[in-house]
Amino acid sequence: MQRTVKVEGSKAKQGAYDDMHARHVTRLQIKLDNLLFADFLLKLQRCLGAVCGMQWYAYATLGITMALLSFLMDFSVAKMLGAQQWLYGQLEGNFLLQFLCWTLYPACLCALAATFCQSICPFSTGSGIPEFLGLFCTLAAGSTVFLGKVGPFVHLSTMFAAYLDNMFSLLQGIKKEKTSDMLVVAAAVGVASCFGAPVSGVLFSVEVMGSHYSLRHYFPCFFSAACGALTFRFFSVWSGDMETVQALFKTNFPSALPFYPLEIVLFAFLGLLCGAVGCCYLFCHRWILQFTKTNPLFIRMQTEKGLYSAGVVFFLACLTFPPSTGQYMASEYTTKELLTSLLDCRQWSSLSHNASVHQELSLKWNTSEMPLLLSLAFFLLMKIWMLVLACTLPLPAGYFMPMFVLGAAGGRLLGEGVAHVFSTGVVFGHHWDSVYPGVYALAGAAALSGAVTHTLSPALLAVELTGQFSHAVPILLATLLANGLARSGNRPSFYDAISINKKLPHLPSLVKAYPQISLTTVAHILEKDSVQLQKAAGPEEVRHIVVASVQLQIPVVDSEDSQILVGFVQRSELLKFLHHCKTQNLQQQMDDVCCIQPVSSLLSPSSTVDMAYSMMSVLELQTLFVADKGKLVGCLTWSKVMNVCKIFMHIFVL
Amino acid sequence: MQRTVKVEGSKAKQGAYDDMHARHVTRLQIKLDNLLFADFLLKLQRCLGAVCGMQWYAYATLGITMALLSFLMDFSVAKMLGAQQWLYGQLEGNFLLQFLCWTLYPACLCALAATFCQSICPFSTGSGIPEFLGLFCTLAAGSTVFLGKVGPFVHLSTMFAAYLDNMFSLLQGIKKEKTSDMLVVAAAVGVASCFGAPVSGVLFSVEVMGSHYSLRHYFPCFFSAACGALTFRFFSVWSGDMETVQALFKTNFPSALPFYPLEIVLFAFLGLLCGAVGCCYLFCHRWILQFTKTNPLFIRMQTEKGLYSAGVVFFLACLTFPPSTGQYMASEYTTKELLTSLLDCRQWSSLSHNASVHQELSLKWNTSEMPLLLSLAFFLLMKIWMLVLACTLPLPAGYFMPMFVLGAAGGRLLGEGVAHVFSTGVVFGHHWDSVYPGVYALAGAAALSGAVTHTLSPALLAVELTGQFSHAVPILLATLLANGLARSGNRPSFYDAISINKKLPHLPSLVKAYPQISLTTVAHILEKDSVQLQKAAGPEEVRHIVVASVQLQIPVVDSEDSQILVGFVQRSELLKFLHHCKTQNLQQQMDDVCCIQPVSSLLSPSSTVDMAYSMMSVLELQTLFVADKGKLVGCLTWSKVMNVCKIFMHIFVL
Repeated sequence: MQRTVKVEGSKAKQGAYDDMHARHVTRLQIKLDNLLFADFLLKLQRCLGAVCGMQWYAYATLGITMALLSFLMDFSVAKMLGAQQWLYGQLEGNFLLQFLCWTLYPACLCALAATFCQSICPFSTGSGIPEFLGLFCTLAAGSTVFLGKVGPFVHLSTMFAAYLDNMFSLLQGIKKEKTSDMLVVAAAVGVASCFGAPVSGVLFSVEVMGSHYSLRHYFPCFFSAACGALTFRFFSVWSGDMETVQALFKTNFPSALPFYPLEIVLFAFLGLLCGAVGCCYLFCHRWILQFTKTNPLFIRMQTEKGLYSAGVVFFLACLTFPPSTGQYMASEYTTKELLTSLLDCRQWSSLSHNASVHQELSLKWNTSEMPLLLSLAFFLLMKIWMLVLACTLPLPAGYFMPMFVLGAAGGRLLGEGVAHVFSTGVVFGHHWDSVYPGVYALAGAAALSGAVTHTLSPALLAVELTGQFSHAVPILLATLLANGLARSGNRPSFYDAISINKKLPHLPSLVKAYPQISLTTVAHILEKDSVQLQKAAGPEEVRHIVVASVQLQIPVVDSEDSQILVGFVQRSELLKFLHHCKTQNLQQQMDDVCCIQPVSSLLSPSSTVDMAYSMMSVLELQTLFVADKGKLVGCLTWSKVMNVCKIFMHIFVL
Repeated sequence: MQRTVKVEGSKAKQGAYDDMHARHVTRLQIKLDNLLFADFLLKLQRCLGAVCGMQWYAYATLGITMALLSFLMDFSVAKMLGAQQWLYGQLEGNFLLQFLCWTLYPACLCALAATFCQSICPFSTGSGIPEFLGLFCTLAAGSTVFLGKVGPFVHLSTMFAAYLDNMFSLLQGIKKEKTSDMLVVAAAVGVASCFGAPVSGVLFSVEVMGSHYSLRHYFPCFFSAACGALTFRFFSVWSGDMETVQALFKTNFPSALPFYPLEIVLFAFLGLLCGAVGCCYLFCHRWILQFTKTNPLFIRMQTEKGLYSAGVVFFLACLTFPPSTGQYMASEYTTKELLTSLLDCRQWSSLSHNASVHQELSLKWNTSEMPLLLSLAFFLLMKIWMLVLACTLPLPAGYFMPMFVLGAAGGRLLGEGVAHVFSTGVVFGHHWDSVYPGVYALAGAAALSGAVTHTLSPALLAVELTGQFSHAVPILLATLLANGLARSGNRPSFYDAISINKKLPHLPSLVKAYPQISLTTVAHILEKDSVQLQKAAGPEEVRHIVVASVQLQIPVVDSEDSQILVGFVQRSELLKFLHHCKTQNLQQQMDDVCCIQPVSSLLSPSSTVDMAYSMMSVLELQTLFVADKGKLVGCLTWSKVMNVCKIFMHIFVL
């Protein structure tokens, strides 16, 4: 038996040995594979790096990927919308089934979208893949819900950029500090890949990223946005949508006589009008955001996000159902078709006398007995409050495109009016027979969306979307005036209102809404017990600090009594010091081993929070030390500034 | 006799009294007038201020005035060029007189331009009215000298902006601190009013004004640039040049199929080519700038600026004289006509078979027996070195437009080649029969001028100048690639080279050329004996400081021994303190009377000059204090930083 045991033992040993050997071989194999992979990476990196820095590949990848996503989104949404239209057409004759098809289809999709974001990542209301799928459902719900894709695309783009940034620094084998480089570029790419509009993408990132724009980001932004826009347009060509790389909403305004010089006055008037409407809309939007947060009934309704979304969308769909009020507001158009019809260069009122063209163009604007212009006015009135209601939906969706379309409708209304009045009579001694209402629509679109977002890039977007520059000057004028009116009186923009409502720690938005914040001094927000080390600190003190704080740069003072700030020491240096003390078993002082770096810029307790914020963001500092007459008072990290913003939110917003 | 004397005395008294009375009345009248004027000003201000802030009127005035100047310049230059052409035509048959007319006309004008600047304000090589008149003469010399107007217009615009800024703050009755607001706006207006191109004007000001662009300037820039562009175009309409507000170089590229998708590769190639040519040009330009400063013969020639200019221009005119080499380089065209002909959408090689169109269009390109394309290549080769030579002329002139035209010529050459090759054969299975060489010319123009100036705004300028957006994407791509090539390897741009050559204290330019400068610490550049006051300073010490220094903010230390920085005191406070001591005859301490303000941000001696520069420019500080462990080391004023730049110039550049 002993022998058996021995044999079994030796067998077991042999087995264990074999096993170990096999494991060893596998480990070696993995190591070799890793080595080969590392070698391959190194070769790839050297090969790519020979042409230009690795970051440029990251920028190009970002642009191309976002354009691909944008194209796929557009393509599949078009298919989904087509499917609903087909089904609705097949059910012709059966009123009830048609009604169910019209209302339940978007309601289910929106319920799905809300559930996606709710159940998979409730905190960020959608991010990454759930956000993308949610956005797809929202867009597939069509013009009933009437929402766009710009906002979520900028968000998706920044997320992907952060991921790429990590990946490429891993590929380069360096550990670099977090910078805002990729995020600024991502904002530009988000807009550029949505519409294939590089220049307005870059202008957008200049406008919304902060109080100062670093020129370091300018060239990367343009490069990445151009990659995105080019890819987006190429996909349209390859998919057979277009014959060549062209604008998304190509117009045919005649360029020989784009407008009469005196029409400038009308464009200016349109701009002011859009500015006023934008202010009203922003007021309603802020009101409803406040309402959703304070009304107890509403808060209870909001707990079931999917059900709430389905309910609201069902209600909206009832209104847009073609046999009901939908017939007066061209509800059978998709958002894209709506915009195309509004930007048409021909005059509707003259078209309506021409039966054949009538059939082709304004069929869906003219299904009822109502005159075209009244129908347009009704569309405007209904859509504005429906959009305000849609803003309460917990869906990933953009609010830029709806404003753009509403602005176009408003501009069209004015343009048709002008064309009607001036084509019949003689004005200022001239017979204005070539007034193009489409140009007014374009100017209105840029002006209203610019007024709501407090940006000027929509003026350029209008040009890039249509591919015609001949009307750039009146469009820019209208947008400028609308912006001027909307910005007067320190009112927060749409973005500001959202970031305040979602309690995002964005100081510029807060300062815009509550200017008194900018006067708060740094002394008010410093924590009482700040982390610090004295120059002659021993291992015990250092260990205590390393355990107690996660701060990367720890201020060093001359002595505990004097509190004179000498410099700062990196956390990694402290760890090295501790390791050194442990191995050598020495009782050394910190400044014998660690390198104490000098502080290059300091704040005083009397400087304002606003100043600290702009110094940190412009100089890209993670830590700023505060000293009074040379004595350390505290230190301000970027995360602390963010916390302070959140505290301000509690004080001012609630 | 006594009586007579008395009477005369009383008469004299009476006369003196009358005189005094009259003077008193006059003085009262003036005072009243002043009061009335002040009242009028107040009323005007209140009236204007009710609509918007006064600064907006200043921005609008700036835009409108610069556009008026630009229009007047163009108008009168066109008249002058017409006069020369007429005279040249009248002298047909007399070779000698024609030669003299061709050569002496521009030579005299340039001599005049150089003398204007030389004799009236030699230091700034022209500013204000002499610069304007000098620029007029330079432009009137025509395409022989081949220079533009952008640069001087930006300069004129900034000067006028500074003047306006003073005037409007006088009107408002406030004394505000000097800010860069108006200057940033002026740069945008300068470009916008030159071409009626608002968006590229704003992008230009974003690109060239510094390392960070403050969003505060964004809206004013757009507003003022739009005012300028609109006014410029309106003047063109009113003068009868155009029927309506249109682009300057309106093109008629067909927008149905702007380009084949695969042509993108060719545009990318064109971009790289332009980048390489741009680098070569910049190298030559830097070389000639260096040469003019170091060559003794040249320095002696430069003393007689008028004569030197006349000589060089005479030489250039000999080369461009139509019966000589001028016949191969279309020298009878003005710069404007050159650009128009280069941007023509039709294919030259196909036109040359069509006799009638041939007559109309490329007459001046085809005066010799040389084929059109060879003529174009010859034009390019000659004009590049002629432009490098023209850069040595001491004239107020812009170098942007010539680069734009040269780029257009290069692009045209490639485009004509492509059109010729591809219209005859089948490429990639397609028959490319609609390749437009004009588009290549436009892309080349944007790419070359972008590469030379290291900016991307020329891409947008190309779009705004032609009023067509359909080709924006390939143009942007070419400009991006050209820029990428030109920027690689830290080479200074055209602007950098000029600012270094003229020893303008612009740190970003210096850092680009000599990157080691950015590592210099503040400790290196601080003066040893810095001005300071101790808290308990008496009137004697204060008087001493006020006399010895002109600094506006004087640092206050705790005591002379400790040197701990407590804060700073305004110069005006010190003057008040001195006055107080004098009137009250008291021996008080400074801190009893003066308000010592806390320092909001500090530098340490170890921070770099680059950091100090960006902190001062971003936070708009005039003074930054430098302290080490709380002790005052020195203070850095903006003027001192400028001086340091000048010192760097001496160390590195010479």
